[in-house]
Amino acid sequence: MWMQQEIALKARPRGFHLITDEIEDALAGLGDIQTGLVSVFIKHTSASLTINENADPTVRADFESFFNHAVPEDAPYYQHVFEGSDDMPAHLKSSLLGPSVQIPVTRGRLNLGTWQGIYLCEHRNHGGSRRLVITVNGE
Amino acid sequence: MWMQQEIALKARPRGFHLITDEIEDALAGLGDIQTGLVSVFIKHTSASLTINENADPTVRADFESFFNHAVPEDAPYYQHVFEGSDDMPAHLKSSLLGPSVQIPVTRGRLNLGTWQGIYLCEHRNHGGSRRLVITVNGE
Amino acid sequence: MWMQQEIALKARPRGFHLITDEIEDALAGLGDIQTGLVSVFIKHTSASLTINENADPTVRADFESFFNHAVPEDAPYYQHVFEGSDDMPAHLKSSLLGPSVQIPVTRGRLNLGTWQGIYLCEHRNHGGSRRLVITVNGE
Repeated sequence: MWMQQEIALKARPRGFHLITDEIEDALAGLGDIQTGLVSVFIKHTSASLTINENADPTVRADFESFFNHAVPEDAPYYQHVFEGSDDMPAHLKSSLLGPSVQIPVTRGRLNLGTWQGIYLCEHRNHGGSRRLVITVNGE
Repeated sequence: MWMQQEIALKARPRGFHLITDEIEDALAGLGDIQTGLVSVFIKHTSASLTINENADPTVRADFESFFNHAVPEDAPYYQHVFEGSDDMPAHLKSSLLGPSVQIPVTRGRLNLGTWQGIYLCEHRNHGGSRRLVITVNGE
Repeated sequence: MWMQQEIALKARPRGFHLITDEIEDALAGLGDIQTGLVSVFIKHTSASLTINENADPTVRADFESFFNHAVPEDAPYYQHVFEGSDDMPAHLKSSLLGPSVQIPVTRGRLNLGTWQGIYLCEHRNHGGSRRLVITVNGE
């Protein structure tokens, strides 16, 4: 069984945002799947997806701080600078974190660990709405 | 054909550990699959999975050294500090490396390169046993 | 429906290279798939795959500059040094970026965003030809 849909996330400020609920809302037919996989793919090069701690918002704040230190704005060696100081770092952060997550499905539910949630990683100052393709495959 | 199981890895010290053999041991039915994919997913936010060099243990030692330099403990800007100095770095390292690996299956075997092995990346000092979901899909 | 093939990319210099066209050329049968996923896996530990901006070559140049700063050659703590100054950094960069990409298929085409392309990330000075396993699953 295959299901696929494209959804648009509302625009969010730069930072790391829990979107597990929005993904689960889009997975209405998941209950029919005993065993499978969900792939969530973001169609952008300046925002990314990851899975991390779902409880304490300071974890997400520390992600933003760390990645701003690890991937500086205005590095003297950047050549791709004409779209703003936040643009080239956004491309780099996107590839460090990656454009997709794959999550097992077990007995009709995402089989995440207790503390795992899905993050939208918004790396632009004004990234706008972001499009995701959610693909479910299972039996 | 779908197969899925959840396994518990024994507790390991902080560092990078080859677990290819344990994954292959869990894949007893793989010989029936001519073409497919294996997904291995870790249900934690302070340990991760990656694929890298399977021969020289100094590669794994250098991974531990590098990630300790790249993701410092006790960075002055961390807010999420109440679970210990190794906790916030563990979350960050987990997302840099990622919670899952996808490996092609060809003629009943994991189609890894000669030098590729699967690493458990244990980022906590005392992470304990780690749970993996292994999902096989193929024909 | 499953399709799988192994292809060899021509040798390329160290750096980040767009290979979307080569992947699409290998996906001749994709038009029959309404909904599915493509997995591209690199069988090496010193080169990797990612998805990022497909238009401006300075983005790829900045990727090379950034990763050379973030993952230094000849770090004093490296133990795995006998294969050259570019070797251990290549292993680390490979795991930071990852060995595979997963891309949704929609109505017979890779469902990439407008600005997304597939990068071969060649981290060795003389990496030679690189082997990919491309697996398609869909209906």
